[in-house]
Amino acid sequence: MKKFINRPENLIEEMLEGFVKAHPDKVRRLETERVLVRKDAPVKGKVGIVTGGGSGHKPAFIGYLGKGLVDAVAVGDIFAAPPVARVYEAIKAVHSGQGVLLCLGNYSGDVMNFGMARELAEAEGIPVEHIIVNDDVASSPKGREENRRGVAGEVVLWKVVGALAEEGADLPKLKEVGERVVRNTRSMGVAHTPCILPTTGKPSFTIGEDEMEIGVGHHGEPGIQRTRMMSADEVTTLMMEAILEDLPFRSGDEVLVLVNGLGSTSLLELYIAFRRIAEILAERNISIHRTYIGEFFTSLEMGGFSITLTRLDDELKRLIDAPCDGVHFVQH
Amino acid sequence: MKKFINRPENLIEEMLEGFVKAHPDKVRRLETERVLVRKDAPVKGKVGIVTGGGSGHKPAFIGYLGKGLVDAVAVGDIFAAPPVARVYEAIKAVHSGQGVLLCLGNYSGDVMNFGMARELAEAEGIPVEHIIVNDDVASSPKGREENRRGVAGEVVLWKVVGALAEEGADLPKLKEVGERVVRNTRSMGVAHTPCILPTTGKPSFTIGEDEMEIGVGHHGEPGIQRTRMMSADEVTTLMMEAILEDLPFRSGDEVLVLVNGLGSTSLLELYIAFRRIAEILAERNISIHRTYIGEFFTSLEMGGFSITLTRLDDELKRLIDAPCDGVHFVQH
Repeated sequence: MKKFINRPENLIEEMLEGFVKAHPDKVRRLETERVLVRKDAPVKGKVGIVTGGGSGHKPAFIGYLGKGLVDAVAVGDIFAAPPVARVYEAIKAVHSGQGVLLCLGNYSGDVMNFGMARELAEAEGIPVEHIIVNDDVASSPKGREENRRGVAGEVVLWKVVGALAEEGADLPKLKEVGERVVRNTRSMGVAHTPCILPTTGKPSFTIGEDEMEIGVGHHGEPGIQRTRMMSADEVTTLMMEAILEDLPFRSGDEVLVLVNGLGSTSLLELYIAFRRIAEILAERNISIHRTYIGEFFTSLEMGGFSITLTRLDDELKRLIDAPCDGVHFVQH
Repeated sequence: MKKFINRPENLIEEMLEGFVKAHPDKVRRLETERVLVRKDAPVKGKVGIVTGGGSGHKPAFIGYLGKGLVDAVAVGDIFAAPPVARVYEAIKAVHSGQGVLLCLGNYSGDVMNFGMARELAEAEGIPVEHIIVNDDVASSPKGREENRRGVAGEVVLWKVVGALAEEGADLPKLKEVGERVVRNTRSMGVAHTPCILPTTGKPSFTIGEDEMEIGVGHHGEPGIQRTRMMSADEVTTLMMEAILEDLPFRSGDEVLVLVNGLGSTSLLELYIAFRRIAEILAERNISIHRTYIGEFFTSLEMGGFSITLTRLDDELKRLIDAPCDGVHFVQH
């Protein structure tokens, strides 16, 4: 295994130590738990935004801490949900009297642990709501959206509810708008190379020399099709058709496009994919309001990328366009 | 070769098409040449900042186009210098009457082509200066700095001269401060996995299963030592000692630290490396003014990272801290 680590068992602790030392202007760590919070948390008069999940997806989750984004992150081990106590401490650390919104991906461990933490916090009188992201169209058929995994669409959720909370919106409003983001967001991924898990030295999945997995999950979960390597245009077209037909996105829609590198796929390739995405959207008379291209939610050094589309209304456009100042996501 | 491309011969053209479609708010392309410029170029009353080089280093070079950074980029083929005509057109496109500063890495093709373009522009009465970045301590011994390659230190140069030009500084001032950045900047890289060149399908270098190359260049050039894989702390210590002793950095210095992923190395690993960097700097009583960690200057999907340190004075600190709004580099 070729990785720049020390002892695998110290991985998360050393990474967090480096992160906090690197960004003391934006984040701090709770003394009790593996929880990072925005430097100035709890922010008076603002609903706290809490997220978290397994490590190995950087810049998710801790790179989104900051003004206009996320207030606290409960940090899990590599690809493992954070324990209940961490989520609970995260909630308490960012509650300033206005309550807390939990944002999480649809994974059983996260759903269970965030749910139990919510109960504990509510028992202490903290108002809590939660939003479960399930944007991955490849992970379960239409009509069974509740079984779908959450992938890079969670970035869109953080951006929108982060901006809305900064404006002073209350918890019911955040819940309503956040659910609207989830309802209007669809993603699909593709990968040709697994990541190697630093804890075990094993690949997240096995795949042939000229193969790729269409619909792959953020932890290397199987998708809908194992196929030969295709050209950028072919695979992008295939993914876009699945995404567009699922919602469905329609002529006249305005969308946010997020092209997300999963680890080792170059920006050069992401822009070649975006060229085809823009062609397809133009053909369907769907206009692009804003584009995010880069590494937003990775799977260590997995080779592949995902496409996320969110249908926007005027309110969502305003919130997407609002400034933010996260550790790894800054917008004027 | 597992890459999301179409025909290799169309790679650069398709990437540029995608890039311009993705960021119409920040960049536009000249009609005549493969040159991208800041949307509002030429900016009245401001010296133009021009850079460029081979493709495959994204977000360098075109990701640094934007306010407070770079005004024009002459785009080369994969790892190949841009032709003279492109640099010349870039200069003309951003000259608003105040002249143009060229920033380039110390590679023979770039030095030759930027030099000839400068002569052409000066013959037309455009005042031009240039700064050659040579921050890679592993590429030639101390005392022969003029033979050293330019690597991620060029990002620091763009940040500083970009901010200074935005303030309205004139060309001689930009030249003076830019040269000061180069004199105070040192870098070193390490890699354990080559990238595959999309044009040929061949790796940029060959290396054993448990080996890494210390001092590797941004195109996979050999460094100073081929060794077994070391721990993150060991390799970071080795690189830091070479960097610190070269300038040398001394007790009481204030520095910018740039930890740059070369392609497939995860942010998680970069933060583990930064943890050790911070320890070493603390031991030497060198204080960290600001930290940049992420992918700033890559070599496609090469596995590895580089460390860059710049010694800062009050003027450089102010310019590093100034806001910027580049395509892939935004700071409040």
